[in-house]
Amino acid sequence: MIMSSGTHSTPGTPAAPADLLDRLRAGLPADALLTDPDVTASYANDMASFCEAGTPAVVVLPRTVEEVQHVMRTATELKVPVVPQGARTGLSGAANASEGCVVLSLVKMDRIIEISPVDRIAVVEPGVINATLSRAVAEHGLFYPPDPSSWEMCTIGGNIGTASGGLCCVKYGVTAEYVLGLDVVLADGRLLSTGRRTAKGVAGYDLTRLFVGSEGSLGIVVRAVLALKPQPPRQLVLAAEFGSAADACAAVCKIMEGGHVPSLLELMDRTTIRAVNALGNMGLPETTEALLLAAFDTPDPAADLAAVGALCEAAGATQVVPAEDAAESELLLQARRLSLTALEAVKGTTMIDDVCVPRSRLGDMLDGVERIADKYGLTIGVCAHAGDGNTHPTVCFDAADPDESRRARESFDEIMALGLELGGTITGEHGVGVLKKEWLARELGPVGVEMQRAVKTAFDPHHLLNPGKLF
Amino acid sequence: MIMSSGTHSTPGTPAAPADLLDRLRAGLPADALLTDPDVTASYANDMASFCEAGTPAVVVLPRTVEEVQHVMRTATELKVPVVPQGARTGLSGAANASEGCVVLSLVKMDRIIEISPVDRIAVVEPGVINATLSRAVAEHGLFYPPDPSSWEMCTIGGNIGTASGGLCCVKYGVTAEYVLGLDVVLADGRLLSTGRRTAKGVAGYDLTRLFVGSEGSLGIVVRAVLALKPQPPRQLVLAAEFGSAADACAAVCKIMEGGHVPSLLELMDRTTIRAVNALGNMGLPETTEALLLAAFDTPDPAADLAAVGALCEAAGATQVVPAEDAAESELLLQARRLSLTALEAVKGTTMIDDVCVPRSRLGDMLDGVERIADKYGLTIGVCAHAGDGNTHPTVCFDAADPDESRRARESFDEIMALGLELGGTITGEHGVGVLKKEWLARELGPVGVEMQRAVKTAFDPHHLLNPGKLF
Repeated sequence: MIMSSGTHSTPGTPAAPADLLDRLRAGLPADALLTDPDVTASYANDMASFCEAGTPAVVVLPRTVEEVQHVMRTATELKVPVVPQGARTGLSGAANASEGCVVLSLVKMDRIIEISPVDRIAVVEPGVINATLSRAVAEHGLFYPPDPSSWEMCTIGGNIGTASGGLCCVKYGVTAEYVLGLDVVLADGRLLSTGRRTAKGVAGYDLTRLFVGSEGSLGIVVRAVLALKPQPPRQLVLAAEFGSAADACAAVCKIMEGGHVPSLLELMDRTTIRAVNALGNMGLPETTEALLLAAFDTPDPAADLAAVGALCEAAGATQVVPAEDAAESELLLQARRLSLTALEAVKGTTMIDDVCVPRSRLGDMLDGVERIADKYGLTIGVCAHAGDGNTHPTVCFDAADPDESRRARESFDEIMALGLELGGTITGEHGVGVLKKEWLARELGPVGVEMQRAVKTAFDPHHLLNPGKLF
Repeated sequence: MIMSSGTHSTPGTPAAPADLLDRLRAGLPADALLTDPDVTASYANDMASFCEAGTPAVVVLPRTVEEVQHVMRTATELKVPVVPQGARTGLSGAANASEGCVVLSLVKMDRIIEISPVDRIAVVEPGVINATLSRAVAEHGLFYPPDPSSWEMCTIGGNIGTASGGLCCVKYGVTAEYVLGLDVVLADGRLLSTGRRTAKGVAGYDLTRLFVGSEGSLGIVVRAVLALKPQPPRQLVLAAEFGSAADACAAVCKIMEGGHVPSLLELMDRTTIRAVNALGNMGLPETTEALLLAAFDTPDPAADLAAVGALCEAAGATQVVPAEDAAESELLLQARRLSLTALEAVKGTTMIDDVCVPRSRLGDMLDGVERIADKYGLTIGVCAHAGDGNTHPTVCFDAADPDESRRARESFDEIMALGLELGGTITGEHGVGVLKKEWLARELGPVGVEMQRAVKTAFDPHHLLNPGKLF
């Protein structure tokens, strides 16, 4: 299990001030407010380990834009912090409550308002589940690519907040590339519309993209216009086994340098392979040092897989197994999907890093993580969206062992330092939240932090929106 | 010829204050400053009609980041406005000088610093010509898609300033989608690095995208990390003739609804076809009311063209002509490329609008433009990036005729009003500049304008960067 971060909350907090609740009630239906402390405490955190979380004063579940506006107007008048939440599947504590805050959960604003096959857009509320949208647009022959691992649970609003990625990114990019326009309730309750519903548009500054990935710290997204693509053919997957992680990384470089456009290009290291076998009896070859999974959703995927298979062999692959059909492809992907669960089972708790490096440095990254694991005497499994250079080094540890916990945290930080040293970023797709805020400053530098803060202040002068995150 | 906007400049302006020139000279090589009034006057404007332009006090042509920093520090100390310029091929007056400003021309910072086939990125200075970059990356099997009409002249810095589009956008999107990271000199001379050189990254607010399309009003881009794609197969083009613009627009909707991904989908209306014939003896059928050009750069473009040709016929195309090879494809595209020159020849001067509507409303847009042309007794030709819904209604008029000039300006505005009414934007790819600033406020609404201004002030508190543009 991922460690709950409730350990850092402060249960002895006084209840919400009566005037806050009274003022909120004045503009909200009774069932939109949760005030029972046992219930509100359950909204304290997302799925990140090691992240502080306070106790919410109240949880609000609005159903309309006007209700969100009422909450924000009230919060601004009373200077109460507001923490927006989706499904709380995030991995960086960005949705963790701050002490005495209003938790604004958008999960009940879950309508798909429009799907247009001609304009290739969907208009949705923030609480729509990613998988629900994906299935709804598929019925029109359309495709909403962003596919974070939590896609069956996570919301579009949460995806926008963290600019979520997924397996598809190597071909289709992250959530940011699919957000055309937004309706946003500002800190003071005013409604801002950004962007467009057209294919192109350059009217003024791109505020849409400013909100994407802002972790709810600039405004509350209440509606989104999303770009869609035509549904591609079903992808076909190939698995390639390597005698070393370095060979697998070299193959990734050769594939990308060769101009191939895989719909997925994933890597699992030895530690991850063994963890998956231990959990799932998946029959992965125990002697393999690294497994590469490549997929194509092109008109002739078998031809593309053959070309990529040959590159893998030239890079030293010990075995190359192309799937013959969709069912075989699914089987090959199952091992990848089980990776995190399998690594969690190793020691009971994991910390998932999210360092993204230029893909030409992927081999150096994997090397370095192995050195770090040795140095701290820890098990660290790496699965990676290899085509993006986006690694998820996953530190396995026993949360009941203080020394191991300390070493886990130190190794986690050292992995980020390595990522920056290799020209990478501390977060490819999981966001900053609470978990990485010291590291954000290190990545951005002083001028970067100052300009980011200036933007924050321009939108949220009283710093009421999701305080204590990012900076 | 596009009308020069020098008519609005004020040639009687006093020369630059001596202390400004002295201060600039202290940190710049002698050949980096142009002070001859005849020379500086020639930097007064870009290619937009009807746009006011002032006289620059001095033109600076820096070659290094440090020189740009020196210019900005000096400008901030003396509170002198700075107007950044690329090749001045813009169509909205965004690069027009303001009275007494420092024109900061980035054309001499024109190095391609790096091209990486594995990481699929290029690192460039802002003065690199679009076509130079395109050819340089092609040698590595790579592709930099953005292709504005001025691609042989315009600079990457200018493309970033206006978030330029082009013919490729229907498949490949605009410049914004290819900018991963930037080095920017801020108004006070500090250097800000934004974004990344990795495939993904969500560390903090997306300031990179904020600068793209900001028309030099937030900072001076001095370096850019650009994403590249693998070079696709050469595209094959099909031409389809229609008996009405409505039929052609219906075909566009059917093509996009059918899940096709053309690399180009362009429309020319009757007026444009006749203008092209008059100019170039291109032999386009004079009785045709609308011509659609579709192209595919897929592995089997002939098959895609056959499918699209059938859709065109079902939508009422009177003739469908698929090219058999690259040479025939080029011939078909020549007519499209001549459109603007041909429309300029009609009356000597043109105003090019840039309204983008949801593609489902393209037919309504073309209908409306025809009504507006009739109402004002003007010739207005429309060519359109039809697949994007991005129309370029081009008002032809005699600039020496005051009444016709007035009607041209009024019809130009009425076209923007129509675009907004149809759920579109006043600018799909040309930018706001001076030409459309009243209209930007109308599109954004009061909350939108206020938040855009707040962002401007956060980056440029003294409003020295490209004043009088956008707002």
